[in-house]
Amino acid sequence: MKNLALTLCYNGSSYHGWQIQQNALTVQEVLLGAVAKVTGEAADIIGCSRTDAGVHALEYVCNFKSKTSIPEEKIPIALNTALPKDIRINRCNIVPDHFHARFSAVSKTYIYKVYTAKIENPFLTDLVYHFPYELNIEHMKKAAEFFIGTYDFSAFMSTGSSQKSTIRTILNLSVSQSGDIVEFSITANSYLYNMVRIIAGTLLYTGIGKIHYNDIPKIIQSGDRRQSGITAGAGGLYLAKVDYGGLL
Amino acid sequence: MKNLALTLCYNGSSYHGWQIQQNALTVQEVLLGAVAKVTGEAADIIGCSRTDAGVHALEYVCNFKSKTSIPEEKIPIALNTALPKDIRINRCNIVPDHFHARFSAVSKTYIYKVYTAKIENPFLTDLVYHFPYELNIEHMKKAAEFFIGTYDFSAFMSTGSSQKSTIRTILNLSVSQSGDIVEFSITANSYLYNMVRIIAGTLLYTGIGKIHYNDIPKIIQSGDRRQSGITAGAGGLYLAKVDYGGLL
Repeated sequence: MKNLALTLCYNGSSYHGWQIQQNALTVQEVLLGAVAKVTGEAADIIGCSRTDAGVHALEYVCNFKSKTSIPEEKIPIALNTALPKDIRINRCNIVPDHFHARFSAVSKTYIYKVYTAKIENPFLTDLVYHFPYELNIEHMKKAAEFFIGTYDFSAFMSTGSSQKSTIRTILNLSVSQSGDIVEFSITANSYLYNMVRIIAGTLLYTGIGKIHYNDIPKIIQSGDRRQSGITAGAGGLYLAKVDYGGLL
Repeated sequence: MKNLALTLCYNGSSYHGWQIQQNALTVQEVLLGAVAKVTGEAADIIGCSRTDAGVHALEYVCNFKSKTSIPEEKIPIALNTALPKDIRINRCNIVPDHFHARFSAVSKTYIYKVYTAKIENPFLTDLVYHFPYELNIEHMKKAAEFFIGTYDFSAFMSTGSSQKSTIRTILNLSVSQSGDIVEFSITANSYLYNMVRIIAGTLLYTGIGKIHYNDIPKIIQSGDRRQSGITAGAGGLYLAKVDYGGLL
């Protein structure tokens, strides 16, 4: 049995996230079908993360054990032939037996894309969050710095989710602007439910002056979801990179 | 009667081009419906150009006469509410009575986008032409220069089309590269059928060495469609700008 890790990207617009579920199409289900077609095996595919409906991935990692005799360098082409165009396998690597796409991850980086022009862009439908307001980028950058560190991020977690611990470490959070696109990049060891989208919404509120950047530490400390910003839409969110500390 | 000019953009992936036709959805038909809904008028909408099925527009111009009392600055918002997300009206201007979106155009600029990475990009499906080969950009730039000028471009016209004259003036043709994207930008007074896509295909053939850049003048002179390159796919083509010499 080889342990195979796939690095893939997907446009999540048509999917209810990664994780297989009844009555809704997911990336995992479609990939399972392609793996079955190519290898003849009913694989147990482990994903690096659940992603929500409509969320995208620039670099998603999953792994599965397989007896296939297909050389790993040929697996991406074989799978891509069996997959719809909105999912593409970019690499396949043989990884150590103990590699686990979810538990071996050291950190994950998400990118969040905001489109700020007044009128929507027909080429970016479902690929950005449309927030047509003037943003104070300097204030957002100052707000972003306050998030970096190890804190209880309860104020940035959707209610209804249960977690053993709500403490997370944000290693990096940056804000950049290019034309009408504003991008956040966030790296953390792991995430609470909807954490990136609520942080994005909070940064946007800072950008329009609805939240003052100096109040971010207070909001974090409060642990109160009502004090942070909106949960920004799923379409702006991209899983961009999973770091396995050299294992992959 | 006011003469109203709309500046719009559209993602052409779901449309059989601009011009209304039976049994196939077009941008003009959808726009006619929206104008009827907003103004109550069955407008005679004149487009700046037919575009082929799957071709996109970053800046398309059309005009129509109307008695509407809606102020022109409010028309884009009203129409956008009635339109699907892949068509967006960016501006509405009152133009002189004699303004005609097609005949008043002095020149048009098209952009052609090529994606050169080995594996397709799920975020660019139908938005680029996938040509996964290494391209010699310098050779393509040299080839592009030979196209600039006034020539008989019969060798770059799809057969079956009839034109009074096949002489056109190319004012500019440039080649640029950014990561895996190669872009051509072409400005001409007007175009023969499929001219941009055949020039794009010819530049790509130059890039892979199938055509030598020094042979471009000979190919133009030949007037022989068989000597030029492939008709590159519709998805890479964008109408980018229509110049009305100050009329709009």
